[in-house]
Amino acid sequence: PKVVVLPGDGIGPEVCASAVEVLQKVAPDVQLEYHLLGGGAYDQTGSPFPDATREAVLSCDAVLLGTVGGAQNSPWNSLPRPLRPESGLLQLRKALGVYANLRPVKVMPGLESLSPLREDLAKQVDVLIVRELLGGAYFDPRRAIDGDAAYNTIGYSKLEVDRVARVAFEAAKTRKGEVTSVDKANVLEVSELWRGVVQHLHDTEYPDIKLEHEYVDSVAMLLVKTPGRYDVIVTENLFGDILSDLAAVIPGSLGVMPSASLGDGPGLYEPIHGSAPDIAGKGIANPSGTILSVAMLLRHSLGRDAEAKRIEDAVQAALTEVRTPDLGGKGTTQELGAAVLARL
Amino acid sequence: PKVVVLPGDGIGPEVCASAVEVLQKVAPDVQLEYHLLGGGAYDQTGSPFPDATREAVLSCDAVLLGTVGGAQNSPWNSLPRPLRPESGLLQLRKALGVYANLRPVKVMPGLESLSPLREDLAKQVDVLIVRELLGGAYFDPRRAIDGDAAYNTIGYSKLEVDRVARVAFEAAKTRKGEVTSVDKANVLEVSELWRGVVQHLHDTEYPDIKLEHEYVDSVAMLLVKTPGRYDVIVTENLFGDILSDLAAVIPGSLGVMPSASLGDGPGLYEPIHGSAPDIAGKGIANPSGTILSVAMLLRHSLGRDAEAKRIEDAVQAALTEVRTPDLGGKGTTQELGAAVLARL
Ligand SMILES: CC(C)[C@H](C(=O)O)[C@@H](O)C(=O)O
Ligand SMILES: CC(C)[C@H](C(=O)O)[C@@H](O)C(=O)O
Repeated sequence: PKVVVLPGDGIGPEVCASAVEVLQKVAPDVQLEYHLLGGGAYDQTGSPFPDATREAVLSCDAVLLGTVGGAQNSPWNSLPRPLRPESGLLQLRKALGVYANLRPVKVMPGLESLSPLREDLAKQVDVLIVRELLGGAYFDPRRAIDGDAAYNTIGYSKLEVDRVARVAFEAAKTRKGEVTSVDKANVLEVSELWRGVVQHLHDTEYPDIKLEHEYVDSVAMLLVKTPGRYDVIVTENLFGDILSDLAAVIPGSLGVMPSASLGDGPGLYEPIHGSAPDIAGKGIANPSGTILSVAMLLRHSLGRDAEAKRIEDAVQAALTEVRTPDLGGKGTTQELGAAVLARL
Repeated sequence: PKVVVLPGDGIGPEVCASAVEVLQKVAPDVQLEYHLLGGGAYDQTGSPFPDATREAVLSCDAVLLGTVGGAQNSPWNSLPRPLRPESGLLQLRKALGVYANLRPVKVMPGLESLSPLREDLAKQVDVLIVRELLGGAYFDPRRAIDGDAAYNTIGYSKLEVDRVARVAFEAAKTRKGEVTSVDKANVLEVSELWRGVVQHLHDTEYPDIKLEHEYVDSVAMLLVKTPGRYDVIVTENLFGDILSDLAAVIPGSLGVMPSASLGDGPGLYEPIHGSAPDIAGKGIANPSGTILSVAMLLRHSLGRDAEAKRIEDAVQAALTEVRTPDLGGKGTTQELGAAVLARL
């Protein structure tokens, strides 16, 4: 199998290097190919998503991504929108057709005290956020700037809702069997369509899953107040962007959170933290989120569940020994990576 | 001066009754007029925002609102959208032209332990959220259901952004002097317009206020992780809906949070909690949020700052003695209301 690695910008190259060592150790048969994405790609080729990258990702089995983007005052942010690093990421998602972004959030045993929440609440968190990744306001053909006004349209078709809801229901089968669909149906027509499609899919194909519909403002509250109430959350792109970041901060250890973006072709795997330009190149970034993304890659794209589990156990064990600064320790990327490798 | 009281649905009538007693005590010259809004208004008149209510609110000095809406399985929720309770609220906001929704969130001394956050973090919270209330996807003339798809457009004009940003900058002058404008400018054109207008207003009229621009997903994270970093937050309608509920849960005492919605005419004042149909009629709802909304009414619509302050001090003191069940106590609406009155 072939995996394309896109180290990207900021701390991306460092955390990817660590994760690739892990991948090579547990799956030495995997072939690696490196390509450019983001700000660095723009600097070298004039595009944040060069053609060579596009071709490579379309003919591989899975993509491992570091992070993209620069600091707030980076010149990349003054480029025309389609040339910015983030645009490279959006184009990559679109090219791969990855419509379902999966973000499992839970507190690692031993790290409870890092949570901004009270420990008894933090311990309860074990939620999978399924975010629709190719629709809504993100990929909006109607977007417009019109004199003194601007418009972005949140649009969804039934098909777009159905396919991502299906991912959520299937995931719930392997968990507690509960799905919360999040919308703003008391105000938005597009949410009413969303709610109807999810309910219909439930009633016709997943009657045994417990389904709730909740409003996005209420979920933002309850994720903090009683985070243990959620098993699988499914929602549209923009709400998912907000809620998944919110959920991710609860364990207090953003650096250990992986993600998978799935469609009908190759999957895309990346840590959820940003490019952290302030610590880039210092060798102190936490590689765990990227290493755990490799585990998701093995599970979802290569069907190697046993190897995925081995990595997850190794990371958890390694974190009892080495902690990078984001976890309150003094460990380096290299030391934490080595501690994981030593356990494999 | 004339104040229109709209008790509304659920616990609205109970908490309004308590708040009105307080208003009458500190400002006996205020004339009161009661009108219908929400589900009860629909039941009695066929409209959630009857004409009589519209006329009354347009010719008064301020409006005090309880809450609107029924339980999730209420028949009101199956009505056509324009007849539902929430629609009454949206029509009321529109009629009054209240484009700026102000929600101050801070932890009351003595109530820190109720926060879902660690106490050291909870103590730092002292933020004013200024939410744009009449634009964006909420009042969208382009909203459409089109066969198997639906659309809601987030639209803003420069004028709409300018007037609400002005409210935020003015508020910051009376606080720490810091404004954080929240958008998703890395993806949305409408956010880029928003950001540009806020920056321009800052540079030309409020150069002494410290202005930051942050992405909505990041703010959702940071509000939980380091809530003390924010002074005034200003954002568009839908982001504000989500972030203000998120912020409100941090003190752990939703029941004590007031809000003011301001425009060029009469202001609208309401607690931020919902209609809580499960406890309606039991006499145990916390009236503090509505009583503190009366304080905001006195300050912002009637220019009576001293009276506002007296009420705020009285509520804070009363809460050291009587606590309703939402605050972990056994007090009743009546007891807490009486404790506030006793201090005035
Ligand atoms: C960088 C940005 C475009 C992106 C998004 O909003 O999707 C990021 O926030 C994320 O969640 O992956
Ligand atoms: C009831 C609903 C329409 C309303 C809103 O979304 O504005 C509520 O959530 C609020 O924040 O006041």
